[in-house]
Amino acid sequence: MQVLLRYASAMLGKTYDSQVCSAARALELVGERWTLLLVRDALFGGARRFSDFQKSLGIATNILATRLDGLVEGGMMERRRYSRNPDLYVYLLTDKGREFVPVIIALTEWGDRWAAPDGKPVLYSHTVCGGEISQQLTCAGCGEVRDPAEVHARPGPGMPAEMAARMLSGHS
Amino acid sequence: MQVLLRYASAMLGKTYDSQVCSAARALELVGERWTLLLVRDALFGGARRFSDFQKSLGIATNILATRLDGLVEGGMMERRRYSRNPDLYVYLLTDKGREFVPVIIALTEWGDRWAAPDGKPVLYSHTVCGGEISQQLTCAGCGEVRDPAEVHARPGPGMPAEMAARMLSGHS
Repeated sequence: MQVLLRYASAMLGKTYDSQVCSAARALELVGERWTLLLVRDALFGGARRFSDFQKSLGIATNILATRLDGLVEGGMMERRRYSRNPDLYVYLLTDKGREFVPVIIALTEWGDRWAAPDGKPVLYSHTVCGGEISQQLTCAGCGEVRDPAEVHARPGPGMPAEMAARMLSGHS
Repeated sequence: MQVLLRYASAMLGKTYDSQVCSAARALELVGERWTLLLVRDALFGGARRFSDFQKSLGIATNILATRLDGLVEGGMMERRRYSRNPDLYVYLLTDKGREFVPVIIALTEWGDRWAAPDGKPVLYSHTVCGGEISQQLTCAGCGEVRDPAEVHARPGPGMPAEMAARMLSGHS
């Protein structure tokens, strides 16, 4: 948590600090421009070296260095030296970074539907059987969620009492 | 597409324009700071009026106005007047906006796991049966995806040939 707060503070000035919300906390870590695309390139494009990310995104090296450092400090990537004189590093995703796959696929599916007039740019398939992969909303009770309107949010154990009360009154 | 490009150009200077990627295109629309939290508040917090969003996020009114206008221009929200003298509006999600539910839930699940030391701040349940809702990676071939490492990305029909070749060579 300390690392998270320090990172958020350094990178975003704790922009979303007043938000008791896991989506907001996720955005503190990956909401900075380019950051999520770096995770995407590491996950799906085989990017590991500084130059791999640079080739893929074509952004200024100082911005790229800041973003990669932020991912390392936020615990999403690990930096390992693979050469001395000059010192060269690879950036490897940690479990915390690898588990961003569902977020990227959810974003991709939305973009495929609403912002891909020429067809899907990328297809995701299952390395085990070759089948097409997608994200689905599922219900532990009855299995399927047919419509996003069927999703209801309510305060959980991690929400302070006064905020929970406000959230519940807003819904009534 | 024209609306998307105009919006992206106005809001983000076409930051990700070189990226043929649906996740990047989604970020063009909702990657600006606060924007995704506005969608969250409209989806799950019952926010409709300018003042609803302001109360929830506590951000400067000029930033809030710019973000809401951006969501309207990007086709995620619709603005409707509900009073004259003074003119007052509600901001209602379109289908395009409502379909962001899976992205927000995927972000939430990641944040719950990696950035919620006090427990989940918000729980999502199914209005139909009350069951707990989650996002799952599924495979059209064999059903389940046990590990994010089992997801492979390859060029789809919407990717220009030369970029597809580069993507394939990067994987080889």
